[in-house]
Amino acid sequence: MNNKPVVTLISKPENMLKTVYTACRTCYSADSPEQIYTAAPDDDAKMLKLIERVISSGHYSTIEHVQVSFAVSNVSRALTHQLVRHRHASFSQKSQRYVKEKGQFDYIIPPTIERDPALKEKFTVFMEQIAAQYQEFIDAGIPAEDARFVLPNAAASSLVVSMNLRELIHIANLRLCTRAQYEIRLMTKLMCDALDEKWLEPYLVPKCKRLGFCDEDKSCGLVPGRVHAG
Amino acid sequence: MNNKPVVTLISKPENMLKTVYTACRTCYSADSPEQIYTAAPDDDAKMLKLIERVISSGHYSTIEHVQVSFAVSNVSRALTHQLVRHRHASFSQKSQRYVKEKGQFDYIIPPTIERDPALKEKFTVFMEQIAAQYQEFIDAGIPAEDARFVLPNAAASSLVVSMNLRELIHIANLRLCTRAQYEIRLMTKLMCDALDEKWLEPYLVPKCKRLGFCDEDKSCGLVPGRVHAG
Amino acid sequence: MNNKPVVTLISKPENMLKTVYTACRTCYSADSPEQIYTAAPDDDAKMLKLIERVISSGHYSTIEHVQVSFAVSNVSRALTHQLVRHRHASFSQKSQRYVKEKGQFDYIIPPTIERDPALKEKFTVFMEQIAAQYQEFIDAGIPAEDARFVLPNAAASSLVVSMNLRELIHIANLRLCTRAQYEIRLMTKLMCDALDEKWLEPYLVPKCKRLGFCDEDKSCGLVPGRVHAG
Amino acid sequence: MNNKPVVTLISKPENMLKTVYTACRTCYSADSPEQIYTAAPDDDAKMLKLIERVISSGHYSTIEHVQVSFAVSNVSRALTHQLVRHRHASFSQKSQRYVKEKGQFDYIIPPTIERDPALKEKFTVFMEQIAAQYQEFIDAGIPAEDARFVLPNAAASSLVVSMNLRELIHIANLRLCTRAQYEIRLMTKLMCDALDEKWLEPYLVPKCKRLGFCDEDKSCGLVPGRVHAG
Repeated sequence: MNNKPVVTLISKPENMLKTVYTACRTCYSADSPEQIYTAAPDDDAKMLKLIERVISSGHYSTIEHVQVSFAVSNVSRALTHQLVRHRHASFSQKSQRYVKEKGQFDYIIPPTIERDPALKEKFTVFMEQIAAQYQEFIDAGIPAEDARFVLPNAAASSLVVSMNLRELIHIANLRLCTRAQYEIRLMTKLMCDALDEKWLEPYLVPKCKRLGFCDEDKSCGLVPGRVHAG
Repeated sequence: MNNKPVVTLISKPENMLKTVYTACRTCYSADSPEQIYTAAPDDDAKMLKLIERVISSGHYSTIEHVQVSFAVSNVSRALTHQLVRHRHASFSQKSQRYVKEKGQFDYIIPPTIERDPALKEKFTVFMEQIAAQYQEFIDAGIPAEDARFVLPNAAASSLVVSMNLRELIHIANLRLCTRAQYEIRLMTKLMCDALDEKWLEPYLVPKCKRLGFCDEDKSCGLVPGRVHAG
Repeated sequence: MNNKPVVTLISKPENMLKTVYTACRTCYSADSPEQIYTAAPDDDAKMLKLIERVISSGHYSTIEHVQVSFAVSNVSRALTHQLVRHRHASFSQKSQRYVKEKGQFDYIIPPTIERDPALKEKFTVFMEQIAAQYQEFIDAGIPAEDARFVLPNAAASSLVVSMNLRELIHIANLRLCTRAQYEIRLMTKLMCDALDEKWLEPYLVPKCKRLGFCDEDKSCGLVPGRVHAG
Repeated sequence: MNNKPVVTLISKPENMLKTVYTACRTCYSADSPEQIYTAAPDDDAKMLKLIERVISSGHYSTIEHVQVSFAVSNVSRALTHQLVRHRHASFSQKSQRYVKEKGQFDYIIPPTIERDPALKEKFTVFMEQIAAQYQEFIDAGIPAEDARFVLPNAAASSLVVSMNLRELIHIANLRLCTRAQYEIRLMTKLMCDALDEKWLEPYLVPKCKRLGFCDEDKSCGLVPGRVHAG
């Protein structure tokens, strides 16, 4: 079993750059957005020159006009419980209430356990025991939504998640931090890779790389801690 | 001068239906969203059969995965002040602080005034006076952001606005109501027309058509008022 | 062990009614909100007469000005994963990454299992096995955030959750529905009870009681299903 | 006529600090939030020691549990059109559709005009002309919602606005910037003053003071511009 998140970009807007370009210019132009859109340069590099200047000034509202959708699977319920805390995103997640697990459920093994063969064996055997206990409740007529109370955080889930580029930057800034859980860091990295937009790369980084300092209580030491104002 | 909103759909996702279909099935399926997406039927009608059942059950979260962008122009600042109250949408609006009006600014005449030639004439002349007063302040060295204090609600604005389909339905339910301002009703109607997705039409209606009753304090009489619970 | 959610109202605004009353009147009055606030009647009944008319017309924005905070504990992670999907609320939840479980962790037994002594016994014994397995990983030096991968959905969590009254109504409308998970229904009921505001009671009901029809795919039969428009 | 925003704090939660303290400790404690709340120190300084450490680490979610409400009046519609762009806040604003102006409407004079007696005189006279034109339309039977199309950005408005402390910090960071419109800067400053919570003061500052650099395209020079990453 592959033990890593699977991330696929399944949807993005037609005309991504042209939409952002039109939004950027609408704020400062006497032309209407229809006119701006129609007259937009065919050359991506020309559009990016404007877009990059606007975004580097922190005016992220202009990239809210681009929403992207990812299909994500093979992630633990530990991860998804964190992921759905992001409130500027849309989620459609596989339901443990309505979808009954059949036989051995899929699960994620944390690397700290996976790399030790004895612990990995214990983990795997225990997942089998959980599956058996779950099945026993199902066989006794307990509905899936209640039998799942024995299912572990390790149980694999899958979901469609959509967010605009501003939120993706926000998620990257938080979840690429070395203080984030390893699995959500990996999933976030895979999202950024799947998007594959070079112009966004300077923003799809841990927050410390944007701030120039670390504001976490316990820094990983990658950049200096902040000197607090006030 | 055309006195009506101009609305153009400038962006929507690739694979709109396939994305919603994948989201709908992900919740209730043992398959991963990647698998669902790949195996989605080529036939729109088949996908819509599922989608329509899910949405008619009020599970609107699945259509949040589709965001659309409109270029809107020739709308009054009276309209835009209302429009930006919708908090689940993204806006990039022409700035009166940074864009100086040159000569006669564009403006919108309300139909109640437009249909009376004498009042229309008064309105038009007064807009010219405002433009002259604005220009006088500009010429005296007052910055645009302050000179604009004399500009009227009638002044035309333009913007790029993006929202997901759930929010579009919400806006349609509120703003197609006959109690809404005529201009924002018209703009909303034009948005729905520009989107041109037949399957959404039963939802892109005034709220009373969905509820079966009117919950406004003063009903227009189209449908019966509600009998309050409790 | 008590097997039910524990809900306490820990914070609400000073002047709840006066704030909503001021908001309601501000929209329709030539007086400033300061004047309205200062001149507000001392009599709750008089303020409620206005408030109830405004809310019954669906103008819920006026009750967004009131936010309330609940301390919630003894709820399963199955519940909290659902609860945090509400995006118009604020959450501070006990972290399984940072808080190590000591000895037997607290857990919730679903009633379908609890009412059958043999199944309950199996469930309880299995929770002990999970605790032992968790402890074994901890003892082997695995960090809490990874050892928790064996912890079940049944594991008890606790959190502080805040939301405005509009969102509370929304949550009640969805989560008091008989189709909602039993535990989140119970927690929602306890929140409404803890708030204890009589004037809100007609709104803190399953959505079908407000709509007059059920829009779920499978109705519980309490009220008639809808006849679809369009 | 006073030419400045009037801001009054009309509502805040009971137990502001205790609520935030409980939220902060809930994340990292084996105790339930009820227990934490009940055992909270009576001493504000002790609670603040914890709170300040959590917030300075950027964990602003804990102060979302505190929402505050302001009555704001004597602000221009130019200001309110900007203010309502903040999407994490709740607004109840005086309606120009439903509230008819009687006689001379209140208005705001920008300081650049006010400080020049000749320009101020022109401005004042012009406001009288607008009031007369508005009245003429009203007298001709035009509804207020259409007659208001001649009313200027300078027209005074008033509203109740509520937001949580995280959003207040966000608004302060943006709107106390010298690049913001003078009037909204002033209103924001008055909000911070009205709140009067010493422990928040280091956060209620222009963003540059928190970042250590200016990310605006055109810096005012208060702090150095950023050296861009990437």
